[in-house]
Amino acid sequence: MDAAQEAHNREAFRQAVVNTLERRLFYIPSFKIYRGVAGLYDYGPPGCAVKSNVLAFWRQHFVLEENMLEVDCPCVTPEIVLKASGHVDKFTDLMVKDEKTGTCYRADHLLKDYCKDKLEKDPNLSDEKAAELRHVLAVLDDLSAEELGAKLKGYGITAPDTKNTLSDPYPFNLMFQTSIGPSGLSPGYMRPETAQGIFVNFKDLYYYNGNKLPFAAAQIGQAFRNEISPRQGLLRVREFTLAEIEHFVDPDDKSHPKFSEVASLEFLMFPREDQVSGRAARRIPIGDAVTQGIVNNETLGYFIGRVYLFLTELGIDKDRLRFRQHLANEMAHYAADCWDAEIECSYGWIECVGIADRSAYDLRAHTDKSGVALVAHEKYPEAKEVEKLVIAPVKKELGLAFKGNQRMVVEALEAMGEEEAMEMKATLETKGEAEFRVCTLDKVVTIKSNMVSISKEKKKEHQRVFTPSVIEPSFGIGRIIYCLYEHSFYTRPSKDGDEQLNVFRFPPLVAPIKCTVFPLVQNQQYEEVARSIARALTTVGISYKIDITGTSIGKRYARTDELGVPFAITVDSTSSVTVRERDSKQQIRVNVDEVASVVKEVTDGVSTWADVLWRYPTHSS
Amino acid sequence: MDAAQEAHNREAFRQAVVNTLERRLFYIPSFKIYRGVAGLYDYGPPGCAVKSNVLAFWRQHFVLEENMLEVDCPCVTPEIVLKASGHVDKFTDLMVKDEKTGTCYRADHLLKDYCKDKLEKDPNLSDEKAAELRHVLAVLDDLSAEELGAKLKGYGITAPDTKNTLSDPYPFNLMFQTSIGPSGLSPGYMRPETAQGIFVNFKDLYYYNGNKLPFAAAQIGQAFRNEISPRQGLLRVREFTLAEIEHFVDPDDKSHPKFSEVASLEFLMFPREDQVSGRAARRIPIGDAVTQGIVNNETLGYFIGRVYLFLTELGIDKDRLRFRQHLANEMAHYAADCWDAEIECSYGWIECVGIADRSAYDLRAHTDKSGVALVAHEKYPEAKEVEKLVIAPVKKELGLAFKGNQRMVVEALEAMGEEEAMEMKATLETKGEAEFRVCTLDKVVTIKSNMVSISKEKKKEHQRVFTPSVIEPSFGIGRIIYCLYEHSFYTRPSKDGDEQLNVFRFPPLVAPIKCTVFPLVQNQQYEEVARSIARALTTVGISYKIDITGTSIGKRYARTDELGVPFAITVDSTSSVTVRERDSKQQIRVNVDEVASVVKEVTDGVSTWADVLWRYPTHSS
Repeated sequence: MDAAQEAHNREAFRQAVVNTLERRLFYIPSFKIYRGVAGLYDYGPPGCAVKSNVLAFWRQHFVLEENMLEVDCPCVTPEIVLKASGHVDKFTDLMVKDEKTGTCYRADHLLKDYCKDKLEKDPNLSDEKAAELRHVLAVLDDLSAEELGAKLKGYGITAPDTKNTLSDPYPFNLMFQTSIGPSGLSPGYMRPETAQGIFVNFKDLYYYNGNKLPFAAAQIGQAFRNEISPRQGLLRVREFTLAEIEHFVDPDDKSHPKFSEVASLEFLMFPREDQVSGRAARRIPIGDAVTQGIVNNETLGYFIGRVYLFLTELGIDKDRLRFRQHLANEMAHYAADCWDAEIECSYGWIECVGIADRSAYDLRAHTDKSGVALVAHEKYPEAKEVEKLVIAPVKKELGLAFKGNQRMVVEALEAMGEEEAMEMKATLETKGEAEFRVCTLDKVVTIKSNMVSISKEKKKEHQRVFTPSVIEPSFGIGRIIYCLYEHSFYTRPSKDGDEQLNVFRFPPLVAPIKCTVFPLVQNQQYEEVARSIARALTTVGISYKIDITGTSIGKRYARTDELGVPFAITVDSTSSVTVRERDSKQQIRVNVDEVASVVKEVTDGVSTWADVLWRYPTHSS
Repeated sequence: MDAAQEAHNREAFRQAVVNTLERRLFYIPSFKIYRGVAGLYDYGPPGCAVKSNVLAFWRQHFVLEENMLEVDCPCVTPEIVLKASGHVDKFTDLMVKDEKTGTCYRADHLLKDYCKDKLEKDPNLSDEKAAELRHVLAVLDDLSAEELGAKLKGYGITAPDTKNTLSDPYPFNLMFQTSIGPSGLSPGYMRPETAQGIFVNFKDLYYYNGNKLPFAAAQIGQAFRNEISPRQGLLRVREFTLAEIEHFVDPDDKSHPKFSEVASLEFLMFPREDQVSGRAARRIPIGDAVTQGIVNNETLGYFIGRVYLFLTELGIDKDRLRFRQHLANEMAHYAADCWDAEIECSYGWIECVGIADRSAYDLRAHTDKSGVALVAHEKYPEAKEVEKLVIAPVKKELGLAFKGNQRMVVEALEAMGEEEAMEMKATLETKGEAEFRVCTLDKVVTIKSNMVSISKEKKKEHQRVFTPSVIEPSFGIGRIIYCLYEHSFYTRPSKDGDEQLNVFRFPPLVAPIKCTVFPLVQNQQYEEVARSIARALTTVGISYKIDITGTSIGKRYARTDELGVPFAITVDSTSSVTVRERDSKQQIRVNVDEVASVVKEVTDGVSTWADVLWRYPTHSS
């Protein structure tokens, strides 16, 4: 199959999935009656149920299993917090404007589209030119505003709709801005991630955990990203649900007590070296990946393993899931290591979970900005003797010598590193004075020996004080759900073979409704039985849909297969009923008063369908 | 006890509760290390767990029980939607500014504080003056900007902190404003309620429900309100979680099939007439309230009953819960009836759930603004013959006569009501022309008989088309949780009687952690047993906390009583352990391998504590 045919098939498959999703209200373009807003979608009833189920399982699999501290912080965030985290300055995309109409575009998207289009459709492209365009695509994320602008100009790229000239690229901050309170003087933003709410609470959470490391905090909530021009349907949206974990750990000990429980798991990994050298992703047991140093540490490896289990239990196809390590140029300068769980769908490989060792960056940034030390303590079994540098400026003398600038000189003296301080000490002892550059004054001053005393003192230390490292698994819930839709969708011929029917093969864990109840024909007796079963299902907490329309049973099955409902109860007598499994279409016969508990059993995973198939008589329709 | 003493006690009780809540991280002032932002709070680990539990129960009690259609819409909302709903124009509070410092205050708060203060503290207040101030308090919510301004001036009220003069009151819109997309041309707001997301989806949801009424849609999500000056701690905040139900019903039939299930419930109700005539709230069976017309209709009554069950099952004290009917001046002009579930706490009676019959207002507003008909259809068993007014403007003639204004004239003609049209018909028949006012042109024009034909025609109608009414129960989740904290809190003396210990008597349904596991003394054997029990608890989905510190068992019990943990497992042997119930402090002895399932049983409500107390030997410590 050639590339064009493959692209066509992918597109056709996506259309089939998306049409089904939209027709059955898994999602709805938000504010549709007002013609919608790009990048905003509602979860309709079945989509909302799938989302609740995914989040409930996330809580069970991560928060409860690991005893994490879950928190819930507001979306509205004051500027200072996002200034500290770097978002105010750096959470930007490069934008260009159509110089006549003012329409905005992402600069890198236009360049990417141009290169891809040329490579795919220009038959006269020279080998040399093709290589150049491929190189541009490879380094796209690294280009500065100037470089991007030069390329756009160089290739003569214009506004896609109007062919008008484009402005130079400039950074556009992707946060939704607002104002807190009535004065207009307190800028705020809608949070771009939930993580910062956890970092600023580190001190309280550490205390809550008995001042012990490691521990993890978690948060599920909305995050916002004011995309310049949203694309890729449900994958790139302006508001989305994140589920984030911040696991705080001693930087000197990133081992994990439960690592052995995941070590033998084997799945597709795509290490940095393999990407650079053009090899394909390969199956590596996560235990080996850590031993061989491919994955930086056990805790990171543990979470990679747990994420694999989480995604595959939801129903993600394990052959279309890989863990890709960030390349050097993708990774933040402070990160120790970073892996993305990527899921393959019709849009290609999509980043759905990021698992990063962010080192001490975030806690340090908030410590610096807030002046509150976000640190951990480790008590030594017995006190240790250490040599400590002591710099004691003599404020009186400095005050006389530097008057208004005294504070800056004092601070600069106190900030000296060990080497610089010991050098000054030697100079003061030999010459009685020393030249000293005060950077906050941008000036060299003369320090005399009566102005500062520098010494090394032996001290007893009872504890080690340090900034913990943070391992952060961050889940884009909407993206995971969209990929799950694609991986769960299939079609099969109807009974008379004249049409293709859609099915979502959701596991019961995920299915929006667990069970349907159908009276086989419209009569009062059967409807009463159906209603009594419905009541029993509610009591045991199983969601159901009851369909008492006179439509043929085949059509009713097809309708709920399309919603991914795993089990259907058909009432064809007042004493016993049939239970049908969605994918195999097998049916068993169960007494009316047992049926709710049987469905609960297979839905909760206490029994499998095979188990109950063995216990109850099969039914052939 | 006099009023001052009572106020003092209430304040002291609140302080005790709030101190405990903050110390144990039920909540944390958001962004505390940056000195916080008024009106924003985080849910810390136990608070977050309580909130999840309340929401999960809400889903079970309302969404699952009533088969509601749950949706999940974005917080970011384009202006047009909130223009249609009336929020852009009317979601305001009256604000005054300190004329020198610019500090903003809610005008009604300043007036309220002044009146209350005078009434409570001024011994020289004349009876006449006191009556006047009480009247001001009663009509406070009805005062216009001008009236409020006049009162503030009249009483000489100045800025509380500076005593500077105040500006005149002016409306401040309470929505957080933002801008959608990069152009700056699409204003948006953070939604002030979740309801609008449901209304704009009515058409799709009605279709999803098989084009049948009644049905209910539900949504849980964040809502935002940029308060001028937040007060009352956790009760009046700038971001909060709402859980809202929109039950769509035929305006001609508001009966409810399940009303009989709640009809005999009896609880405190406070009808409008009783409030006006100064009577107290009284117990009325909800069935009687509907029969007697105190509550407008069965559906409204059904939800009042269900809300009562919901709140009391959470642990709200039924004697401090009342349903208060809105007074005529409180109710929106379109509302048919409205009741608030008010819960008494140290701040007084607090509105926690609003249950309103909003008639057809919202659907009509969005129909008008969007041009999409948000209506329902009722097929007649057989077609009905009806007489219909038909107005047919003759566009050619109107075009010749009115040129550029043709469209406005056509629209005005088509919009005529029956009476006006029949009058015009008569005039045209007798005089050949008629004067006609076109409001969009602000002009009277002459219509000739060749320009329009007006007739009454008999038509067969196959269905009735109408705008459904909406019954809306709307839950302020944070307020319910805060009141629950106050209603659950009590103190009791420690064993040696030298201190008071705090306890939250949360039912297991709500408790943030269901169970603690304590090895009685620090030794490896007991710790291993504790860990195996912990694993078993995780498997059955029961959240727990394990405490292996060497602290005395009494202290450890006290610590978890303060978190409201209902059950504690103490490991004092390797074969059997004790289970202690929080409030009675009774203990039973259970085998190690049974204990997780026993705790699950009492936590899930399958058995009561009394049941298991009867089944297992009691243990006296």
